[in-house]
Amino acid sequence: MSVAAAAPLPLARALADIAAAVDRRFDLLLPVPADARADLYACMRHAAIGGGKRLRPLLVAATADLFGVDRDCAERVGVAIEAIHVYSLVHDDLPAMDDDDLRHGKPTAHKVFDEATAILAGDCLHALAFEWLADPATHADPFVRAELVLEVARAAGPGGMAGGQAMDLAAERTPFALSDVTRLQQMKTGALIAVAVEAGAILGHVPPEGRTGVRGYARDLGLAFQIADDLLDAEGDEDAAGKRLRKDADAGKATFLSLMGPERAREQCRMLTEQAVQHLHAFGPEADLLRALARYVVERDR
Amino acid sequence: MSVAAAAPLPLARALADIAAAVDRRFDLLLPVPADARADLYACMRHAAIGGGKRLRPLLVAATADLFGVDRDCAERVGVAIEAIHVYSLVHDDLPAMDDDDLRHGKPTAHKVFDEATAILAGDCLHALAFEWLADPATHADPFVRAELVLEVARAAGPGGMAGGQAMDLAAERTPFALSDVTRLQQMKTGALIAVAVEAGAILGHVPPEGRTGVRGYARDLGLAFQIADDLLDAEGDEDAAGKRLRKDADAGKATFLSLMGPERAREQCRMLTEQAVQHLHAFGPEADLLRALARYVVERDR
Repeated sequence: MSVAAAAPLPLARALADIAAAVDRRFDLLLPVPADARADLYACMRHAAIGGGKRLRPLLVAATADLFGVDRDCAERVGVAIEAIHVYSLVHDDLPAMDDDDLRHGKPTAHKVFDEATAILAGDCLHALAFEWLADPATHADPFVRAELVLEVARAAGPGGMAGGQAMDLAAERTPFALSDVTRLQQMKTGALIAVAVEAGAILGHVPPEGRTGVRGYARDLGLAFQIADDLLDAEGDEDAAGKRLRKDADAGKATFLSLMGPERAREQCRMLTEQAVQHLHAFGPEADLLRALARYVVERDR
Repeated sequence: MSVAAAAPLPLARALADIAAAVDRRFDLLLPVPADARADLYACMRHAAIGGGKRLRPLLVAATADLFGVDRDCAERVGVAIEAIHVYSLVHDDLPAMDDDDLRHGKPTAHKVFDEATAILAGDCLHALAFEWLADPATHADPFVRAELVLEVARAAGPGGMAGGQAMDLAAERTPFALSDVTRLQQMKTGALIAVAVEAGAILGHVPPEGRTGVRGYARDLGLAFQIADDLLDAEGDEDAAGKRLRKDADAGKATFLSLMGPERAREQCRMLTEQAVQHLHAFGPEADLLRALARYVVERDR
């Protein structure tokens, strides 16, 4: 079952549209040069184009829409944040990390190319994300560009995504309580989801005190997303997911699921989703896409 | 022989001062947290503190001095650029890349910790560099911060350092001509050296048309530096260098040295150094540190 088929119609269309836009932009931003870097670029393209739900770019665009932001700016920022997400998958899949052979139904980057190329392709996507954010084409106001870089770098670094991944590797060796797992996941996946929403507000010149609603939405959505991921890992179909499942249980790792059990996890996921939607109470129908996205996160099959 | 002993007195003092300042700043910027990320931070500290010539931070500071920039701003930017340099060494030393056990006279990051921690520590230093550049503490003007991020990201990514490293790995498999090696080295080491100099001018609000002199200086210095590095690799002392030497010849890789021979390489290095100094003709004694640095690059023993 495709992503689009599982989602209600306006959301399905939004997901399909953003996926096409992200692919188109990556294609233009990553032209393969006629020199010794051809494999490096081919590896970036393999990892970045034609895969993934594009949840983060959609969150940027949907939040940016709330604040009347130009769609071109929102898509540029969405692609930059997606580049960070993609680089992290390329590095996480390496033999020294999670050692995965399959991602989005395709062989992982280091399997198609080699480990050195995959490491460098990840590093390049990481640098390109900041190049794209800081480029005047992303927003005319340098204050907006600098704030985007600052927030995305914080979300990507040791206080966010990469720090969470380090904790995740440690979780295979150390007993983790529910509060540890919550913090780990808020860093590993929550921080980049949160900054995608925040970026939509930054692009709209919304001051920090005006971002409370969308921030609350992003925080609850991020946790719900991760619990749904745990449930998919345990109960999902490998073909639909396009990656190896049942890894957490095999590694004996503490997860939301192992600590709460499937019923409480499902209940918690639903509760967080409704809570996420409540945070948007100040908005009218213009926030319906964000609301639909939150509810879809629990229902998705990949 | 220490770096300081090989350099003339004012340069020796400047090198010692910047090394102490960079170590102090990394120490403050990388406090080890009391959680599962302790190893991640310890690994960043191992790689970042107490090693290296700190050439890039000194170039930022010395160029910033030409344009009356506050020293605190210049040091923050120098540390950010050094963080990019350090992350690249950590990743380049990995078994899948250059497979090195020794760096700055110490075991490499993946030897002290493990490969996963080294990959993540590199990724974290990469993100932190952009966080520090975009932080309002680096410069009050957001235009300056956004331009610093843009230029450093360009220098670090596939059009600069990481692209050059990808070419370098390809050089072990493909025959490279002198023009290929020049382009490779301009990307791999030249781009980050050039952006260190450029950053000093950006901090001083010097418009691009006013940067011709320092840009020319940086370009020639970067190439001279790399030729000197090739000579050191072939003729240097492993104890003084604090790393494994004779790698290029062992790998049968085309370098400036293998293509020009030692005498022409030494001559070219001297010529480039003098050319670098000539680019500074518009400046008075305030550029003496940059001049001394260029001449020292040919004479250094590590």
